[in-house]
Amino acid sequence: MRKIALKIAYIGTRFYGFQRQPDLPTVEGELISALQEAGLIEDPKDARFQAAGRTDKGVHSLGNVVTFFTPYDVHVNQINDILPRDIKVLASASVYYGFKVRYPLKRYYRYILFDDDLDLEFMNLAASKFEGTHDFTNFSKRIERNPIRKIESVKIREDDDYYIIDVVGESFLWQMVRKMVKVIADVGKGEIEAEKVDELLNPKERIYIEPMPPENLILIGLEYGVKIKFKEDDYAISSFKSMLEEEFLEYKRASIVRKVMRDTLITFK
Amino acid sequence: MRKIALKIAYIGTRFYGFQRQPDLPTVEGELISALQEAGLIEDPKDARFQAAGRTDKGVHSLGNVVTFFTPYDVHVNQINDILPRDIKVLASASVYYGFKVRYPLKRYYRYILFDDDLDLEFMNLAASKFEGTHDFTNFSKRIERNPIRKIESVKIREDDDYYIIDVVGESFLWQMVRKMVKVIADVGKGEIEAEKVDELLNPKERIYIEPMPPENLILIGLEYGVKIKFKEDDYAISSFKSMLEEEFLEYKRASIVRKVMRDTLITFK
Repeated sequence: MRKIALKIAYIGTRFYGFQRQPDLPTVEGELISALQEAGLIEDPKDARFQAAGRTDKGVHSLGNVVTFFTPYDVHVNQINDILPRDIKVLASASVYYGFKVRYPLKRYYRYILFDDDLDLEFMNLAASKFEGTHDFTNFSKRIERNPIRKIESVKIREDDDYYIIDVVGESFLWQMVRKMVKVIADVGKGEIEAEKVDELLNPKERIYIEPMPPENLILIGLEYGVKIKFKEDDYAISSFKSMLEEEFLEYKRASIVRKVMRDTLITFK
Repeated sequence: MRKIALKIAYIGTRFYGFQRQPDLPTVEGELISALQEAGLIEDPKDARFQAAGRTDKGVHSLGNVVTFFTPYDVHVNQINDILPRDIKVLASASVYYGFKVRYPLKRYYRYILFDDDLDLEFMNLAASKFEGTHDFTNFSKRIERNPIRKIESVKIREDDDYYIIDVVGESFLWQMVRKMVKVIADVGKGEIEAEKVDELLNPKERIYIEPMPPENLILIGLEYGVKIKFKEDDYAISSFKSMLEEEFLEYKRASIVRKVMRDTLITFK
């Protein structure tokens, strides 16, 4: 028996989140089926299958990690051949028996924010207030037993007509990144003051924050106390890259077709 | 009894073409159901329901026209309330009994061509060769009883990173516009000479031409010998415009998320 870690990338669009659910397509469900079909595990409980990040419905990943026990050799592309094209195992590693995949030191998230006309200075001020250890009660979907979380950094940079917000922390509550981005965007719009973040992080009453859409959130990677020696698979990485490139073009063209239709609708009578 | 003409816009993406098919979503199927549910027609045969353009699977429209007989007043928004959001009746008109919707004088098609690095001069030369009356045997999906068609004009203009090809003619064979665009693009790439078009239009043998993808083709409108007095519905037009605007943004953002994921995959280890 060996304990194997797999680094997983996926486009979340088609899935009902990571976590297995009966009769619904989920990333975990597809992964477990593929490992079973490849003959690597039988029962996921017996194999002690575990995952680092239970991403929400619609959220993407470039580096989620799962572990399981198996007596067999693991060939990444044998698993990938069985997986649907929007999930790919990018790398594999042997880890020691006690390795706890659910407790990384750092989780890296990237959010793409499409609002226009935001004040970057205000946003940076709001972002910096999240750094450190705080009570994130207001930044979760539900009441948590322990709402204290430590955020290492929140960095914002502007690109063409969107912002990229990178959030690094040890662990996150449900919807936490998406609610943080919502507050940062509201500060950027001038709808609330940056000081409001201090209030939200020192909750006297529970305040509802609308989470930003999940389809713009990516779990980009995880970092563990012990360095895992992942063996990256170039073929898997380049196929996933090709799929992203294809979808990029497909969506871009579909958007232009809609634009041309809109413009034509106005001018053609 | 009055004969009513409706001007119809739709996004073809979700439909298996225009023409009714059992157990598959089609534009005609949805239209007939909505007219029935609105109580305007009972049996489509009895109402002599007819359509001008039987667009292929995936092809969009901004001005297809259908006619039918009904004893009732037609309210465009009553029909639109029943229709799915990707089909909209934009206008209605009363027409004379003998009006033949299937025989417009002109059909206007617009194709959005996404190939890069094409020679516009070569393409214009190829395009001009289609104008006039020709044997379009090679530009149809199947053997046609009468493959002779008259093309009024083929005009190309360059936009940001795509070309818009406008084709006007009396009537078209199945896949004809998409095969014409394929040949124009091949000439633009320098893969075949513009003179090849003359050969294809004087068929000695049947040559297979791969049609361009349907999702970039729009039937923009029809013109009849007798001017139909369409009463346009501003509310319907502006809702369809909003839907196009929404889809434009949605696809644009999805494309950017893929681009960011691709770039992140390369840089993040």
